[in-house]
Amino acid sequence: MSVLIVGTTALDSIKTPKAENPRLLGGSASHAAVAAGFFAPVQLVGVVGEDFPQRYLKLLVKHNVDLAGLEIAPGKTFHWSGEYEVNMNNRRTLATELGVLETFDPLLPAEYRATPFVLLANFAPALQGRVLDQLTKPKFIVADTMDLWLNIALADLLKLLKRVDCLVLNDSEARQLTKDDNLVGSLKKIHKLGPQYVIIKKGEHGAILSHRSGALFVAPAYPLHRVVDPTGAGDSFVGGMMGYLSTAKGSVEDNLRRALVYGSVVASFCCEGFGLKFTTKITRAAIDARFKELTALTRF
Amino acid sequence: MSVLIVGTTALDSIKTPKAENPRLLGGSASHAAVAAGFFAPVQLVGVVGEDFPQRYLKLLVKHNVDLAGLEIAPGKTFHWSGEYEVNMNNRRTLATELGVLETFDPLLPAEYRATPFVLLANFAPALQGRVLDQLTKPKFIVADTMDLWLNIALADLLKLLKRVDCLVLNDSEARQLTKDDNLVGSLKKIHKLGPQYVIIKKGEHGAILSHRSGALFVAPAYPLHRVVDPTGAGDSFVGGMMGYLSTAKGSVEDNLRRALVYGSVVASFCCEGFGLKFTTKITRAAIDARFKELTALTRF
Repeated sequence: MSVLIVGTTALDSIKTPKAENPRLLGGSASHAAVAAGFFAPVQLVGVVGEDFPQRYLKLLVKHNVDLAGLEIAPGKTFHWSGEYEVNMNNRRTLATELGVLETFDPLLPAEYRATPFVLLANFAPALQGRVLDQLTKPKFIVADTMDLWLNIALADLLKLLKRVDCLVLNDSEARQLTKDDNLVGSLKKIHKLGPQYVIIKKGEHGAILSHRSGALFVAPAYPLHRVVDPTGAGDSFVGGMMGYLSTAKGSVEDNLRRALVYGSVVASFCCEGFGLKFTTKITRAAIDARFKELTALTRF
Repeated sequence: MSVLIVGTTALDSIKTPKAENPRLLGGSASHAAVAAGFFAPVQLVGVVGEDFPQRYLKLLVKHNVDLAGLEIAPGKTFHWSGEYEVNMNNRRTLATELGVLETFDPLLPAEYRATPFVLLANFAPALQGRVLDQLTKPKFIVADTMDLWLNIALADLLKLLKRVDCLVLNDSEARQLTKDDNLVGSLKKIHKLGPQYVIIKKGEHGAILSHRSGALFVAPAYPLHRVVDPTGAGDSFVGGMMGYLSTAKGSVEDNLRRALVYGSVVASFCCEGFGLKFTTKITRAAIDARFKELTALTRF
């Protein structure tokens, strides 16, 4: 079964204390799509400008991503440039040039509208909502978000939360959204805003999955001995999760825990190279091997 | 089998944004001993002053702690006073009065010297070393430490590390000790300093256990919906771990993972009340129930 992924497709220029990498393939949808593509065919909806390199289009296609929904618009591709500090935990945005994203209206090709597994990768919540308007048979809708939207589009985000099955955000965003320092407390408050599932990402510390019933799952992260660039790790996490979910037999409820761990595994590979450089070199077999390893690392 | 625990026995005055609690039973050895006492008889070695309340002695005895090694010296008990910030993650020391600790020399009663499981709870590393000099049949020696000793007694600590089986410290201390921001990298460096096992505590994010061979175990923390006072949680963690280890059948290697999770469970109870207030109200059955719950929370 396919996964529909809507979000940003970007060019990322990433500086770290050790290196500088201009105009990498980036954006929430690119990372999520490549991650999901290891498990299932992906339908990507997004926009790029005329400057978007052909080789990136080819790279996406090679990774199981259908581009019928990727608009190539006159103008420049969304460009993000950022810098990481020494410990790789703090990120500073140097520049954001929206380019063709400024006037983008996500329009789903007719053949994408009945796709059951839908990932609204990190993106303006109003546009995430526009995608939902076009769906005919959604089975499981996941929305990812970030602090930017809490700051500038909170009303849109709150509207969106009533329409999705699962919200994904990181720990500081959860605290910001709920004004609750305790994560278990903040999870309860987010459920009241709409979603029956909430996932809080904690970076190198893993993630927590919560169901409206109060049931929790504490998901591990793979302990990495080198972190080259964490950009896109959160997008890879949700992408891998949705890719696995869409192909696993049984109910979403039955598969969600394993799906989170698969997402965690793909995210770990993402951190080992700049942008998508490392992720696009691995195979499904490498993912399965690390999943098995992570299982062994956490058994007691 | 008994566990020998050497460390500080203190009076703690703890301020949080919500409350003030003067002269609670505290200290690394008190917390560790109560935690271990749920699993095994404990031999406590430490010192208190003449002002130490009788009711605290009774509380320790009630919790399976033998006090033959607790010296009551002329003078005042070690008194620590500290304050937590709103999110309970940052602690500030307001005052430290060493009292009888200043001249303390840990002397083991003859009947304690052959005890196989030995916990050097957080304490001056030179004195932790003095304890090792008196042991006749140690099977598994664990040393806990803190940033203070990295700052003022690093040479003593490095000497101690060559003599213990396992070092326990938190993530920021591991980074400080090794100058390595990556935890997996810092674990490797700590093994080179001596211990065959290293445990890095990550508070609400759990812990990582590492063996010299490179084998890792990622241990979860129990997701708490209320954190009243985290003082002593790390001591409860190692205490619970050593208590379980000393009674479990089989080798240390076979039991260490489960021991960490038991430690994590006792530490979670510790955080739910000031000082030892909550920990001293629970039962072994409550610990086993939460262990079972944590197992279910982490299965995938």
